[in-house]
Amino acid sequence: MTSPGQHMAAEIAEQPAVLAGLVERHAEFAEAAARIAARPPRFALLAARGSSDHAAIYAKYLIEVLLGLPAGLVSPSTVTLYGARPDLRDVLLISVSQSGGSPDLVEFTTTARKQGALTVAVTNTPTSPLAAAAELAVGIGAGTERAVAATKTYSATLLALYLLVDAVRGGDGSTAAELGPLAERALEVPVQRAIDRYRFADRIITTARGYSYATALEAALKLAETSYLATRAYSAADLLHGPVAAVDAETAVLAVTGAGRGGAAMQDVLAAVAERGADVLALGSACEEVPAALRIPVPPVAEELAPVLEALPVQRLALGLALARGGDPDSPRGLRKVTKTR
Amino acid sequence: MTSPGQHMAAEIAEQPAVLAGLVERHAEFAEAAARIAARPPRFALLAARGSSDHAAIYAKYLIEVLLGLPAGLVSPSTVTLYGARPDLRDVLLISVSQSGGSPDLVEFTTTARKQGALTVAVTNTPTSPLAAAAELAVGIGAGTERAVAATKTYSATLLALYLLVDAVRGGDGSTAAELGPLAERALEVPVQRAIDRYRFADRIITTARGYSYATALEAALKLAETSYLATRAYSAADLLHGPVAAVDAETAVLAVTGAGRGGAAMQDVLAAVAERGADVLALGSACEEVPAALRIPVPPVAEELAPVLEALPVQRLALGLALARGGDPDSPRGLRKVTKTR
Repeated sequence: MTSPGQHMAAEIAEQPAVLAGLVERHAEFAEAAARIAARPPRFALLAARGSSDHAAIYAKYLIEVLLGLPAGLVSPSTVTLYGARPDLRDVLLISVSQSGGSPDLVEFTTTARKQGALTVAVTNTPTSPLAAAAELAVGIGAGTERAVAATKTYSATLLALYLLVDAVRGGDGSTAAELGPLAERALEVPVQRAIDRYRFADRIITTARGYSYATALEAALKLAETSYLATRAYSAADLLHGPVAAVDAETAVLAVTGAGRGGAAMQDVLAAVAERGADVLALGSACEEVPAALRIPVPPVAEELAPVLEALPVQRLALGLALARGGDPDSPRGLRKVTKTR
Repeated sequence: MTSPGQHMAAEIAEQPAVLAGLVERHAEFAEAAARIAARPPRFALLAARGSSDHAAIYAKYLIEVLLGLPAGLVSPSTVTLYGARPDLRDVLLISVSQSGGSPDLVEFTTTARKQGALTVAVTNTPTSPLAAAAELAVGIGAGTERAVAATKTYSATLLALYLLVDAVRGGDGSTAAELGPLAERALEVPVQRAIDRYRFADRIITTARGYSYATALEAALKLAETSYLATRAYSAADLLHGPVAAVDAETAVLAVTGAGRGGAAMQDVLAAVAERGADVLALGSACEEVPAALRIPVPPVAEELAPVLEALPVQRLALGLALARGGDPDSPRGLRKVTKTR
């Protein structure tokens, strides 16, 4: 007999160990990076679905900023539905899937490899069809995930992508060395007041800029999946460009405000939503520096690694809220672990 | 003195003439295409914000499927916030902005041109900073847009992108020849029952696959902007991958189901949402072929052009709903025409 949310809670708690373990496996990332460096790409593509899609967006920022390569997210259906056969020489394709079992990602990866791309699978399942389809595979080492909502596989995927990109630029992963202990601290920041505050919320807008945009996307998805909230994520720039019209005093806004350039660029949007009377929850290492009704701090770390830590209080908020609302995040209505999209 | 929604209604009605006018300007697109063909790109990037972002996603499908080039959407902040200077030789950058005035797109385009990209601006304002910053510029010829919610500039941007891509592959634009008259018909399909049905809706999920994913995104944004609904768009594949958990009998689902491969691939997701008791509105040329509580037909056209026509009943639904709910879509709360994002 299991209690509601038991698996999700257990897996959230495993993250310090999972992240610390990944950092120790730096040599594997260095090896994959050497293979990539031997065939230097000029363009990167990322293929993913669901939570992994948010990890892919995070990787896109890493690749563009740290490697100076243009990068884009793949729409698998151009290949799987429409039969596109793009010229992918000089392209690095990173396919991201916790299960490694999504048929459309496998098909896209197989086609991309035939079309000349250097293909890398980032997956939690080294024996998966996706890992087999790609030329290179790196594991995220998160262990079996029993909860339906991805938690430890999400943060581990982010860190694996960071370690891979960092290794390609010649880094030794030392910027990530303290992530295990930092994750311990991120599990201790108080989230109960936010749970209480969102108990009767109907709709939540999440927003961020830069690397942490992935956190906003993941928060919106996680809250929608586990608590059936109407959520929507916007880059802060896009939110200002129109949808701020839908913000009012009844709108909860979860704004990710970490130290660094992304967080600093949140001032305009925070002023705009404050003007409209929105209820703002600031989450991040710089949450004390912005006007907000409520704050969830996150331990400081290099800006490009902040999304790994920001995910933890987001998950705890989603879990706590689901339980407070009488749900069981371990068996949400209709969520499947592997989707057989084609 | 103006009545609520007057500008939006007038501009919706202009679309047949705007689209027909664009088709007649095929020579301009052929000329830009010849310049592109003279420097054949290996990768394409698209830069846009807001509604233009949805047009960029549409263009991404066109480029990948019709030109066989990998394509990605730009995150301008990698350049404008983080100072990335990617190597963009052999890259075609298409910057899409109705106003041509978004500072971050201008800055990104300027930087991309310096970094070696062939830059093309697609804009409604030929004298705009964006058109000046790019090496090539094509106009969408939609005339002055007075309504705050983009309507005619959206459909015209889609068609301009189609004509450009079609010309690059050597097409003569003839597939689009009838779009003017077809748009007339799209303005006559009945939407009143959908307006009545959504009068008291709180949240709407929009979904589609393939080219029409842009329609789902645009519908979600337009309804959020003008009627303050909590909306969220999902690719049908992503919806099945998790968020379907949040669908129940109180969820309105707007599913775009046109003739062709994208619409045909909607069967799984429609079965899943039907199983959960959702209220489905099917919109598209194949809407009669799927289970739905309500249908909005769209005149049939080549699948890759369907999003141009699908936008029209979506706009009419957004306008009608805003008025039914007592709002004025011409002066929505907080919407600005040009956002000064940096």
